[in-house]
Amino acid sequence: MSTSTVTTASKERLRAWLKILKTARHIEKELRERFRTELDTTLPRFDVMSALSRAPDGLKMHELSSALRVSNGNVTGIVDRLVDNGLVQRQAVQGDRRAQLICLTPLGITTFGDQARIHEAWVDELLTDLPPSDVEQLMDLLDLVH
Amino acid sequence: MSTSTVTTASKERLRAWLKILKTARHIEKELRERFRTELDTTLPRFDVMSALSRAPDGLKMHELSSALRVSNGNVTGIVDRLVDNGLVQRQAVQGDRRAQLICLTPLGITTFGDQARIHEAWVDELLTDLPPSDVEQLMDLLDLVH
Repeated sequence: MSTSTVTTASKERLRAWLKILKTARHIEKELRERFRTELDTTLPRFDVMSALSRAPDGLKMHELSSALRVSNGNVTGIVDRLVDNGLVQRQAVQGDRRAQLICLTPLGITTFGDQARIHEAWVDELLTDLPPSDVEQLMDLLDLVH
Repeated sequence: MSTSTVTTASKERLRAWLKILKTARHIEKELRERFRTELDTTLPRFDVMSALSRAPDGLKMHELSSALRVSNGNVTGIVDRLVDNGLVQRQAVQGDRRAQLICLTPLGITTFGDQARIHEAWVDELLTDLPPSDVEQLMDLLDLVH
């Protein structure tokens, strides 16, 4: 390959990356705003509840952090607030006095179910110009990136 | 359209959005780490310098904030540090005593040029499995989202 071909390839990949980033930031910003104004919650709170909804037996703190790929410190604050709101509870782990399992309360399960339906409808609206028949192709292309 | 078709469409769009988000977060995390460990800088600092590099006449603070879509407060701290490092300078605006123009210093211009080349090479490496010939198709699909 000539130098100019290599340069073009890297410029093309840079364009692709900047577009992915711009798209993700645009949609994420819109969702953050709607979570705040319409559901009086936040995207990180929703993400924590979403992770817990997939773990009916509960998660340890470090498991929750790694599921979300954020620091323990941030997750602790979010879990504290969710506990205050009665949406999440901490349970002792038998045989390990220092560990706790975090799980949704019954109220948390129904609240998350409602929020997840609304979230899915928002995404459907924001991505309305993307035909479902094109989704597989987009997934395949993004698989090459990730 | 039947209910199940509508449901499938919104589930497909949700899949697409979660994939876009996951891809963006994965690449961004990798870039953040490299900026920190290999260039002793941060992604927000790089973004500020990138915006300034496209504005040789300088930008007012609110123009810089809106170019980056972040709050003024965060940008002020980043600009302060870049000024301390001699990479950015503030200039008075003729006829408007309260306004300042922010621009790169000569050292900032060469430093950003070096960082931008390295950043492009990282992206080229991280997206190496994406053939440049597929980029246009990915851009077209993401145009439908954004």
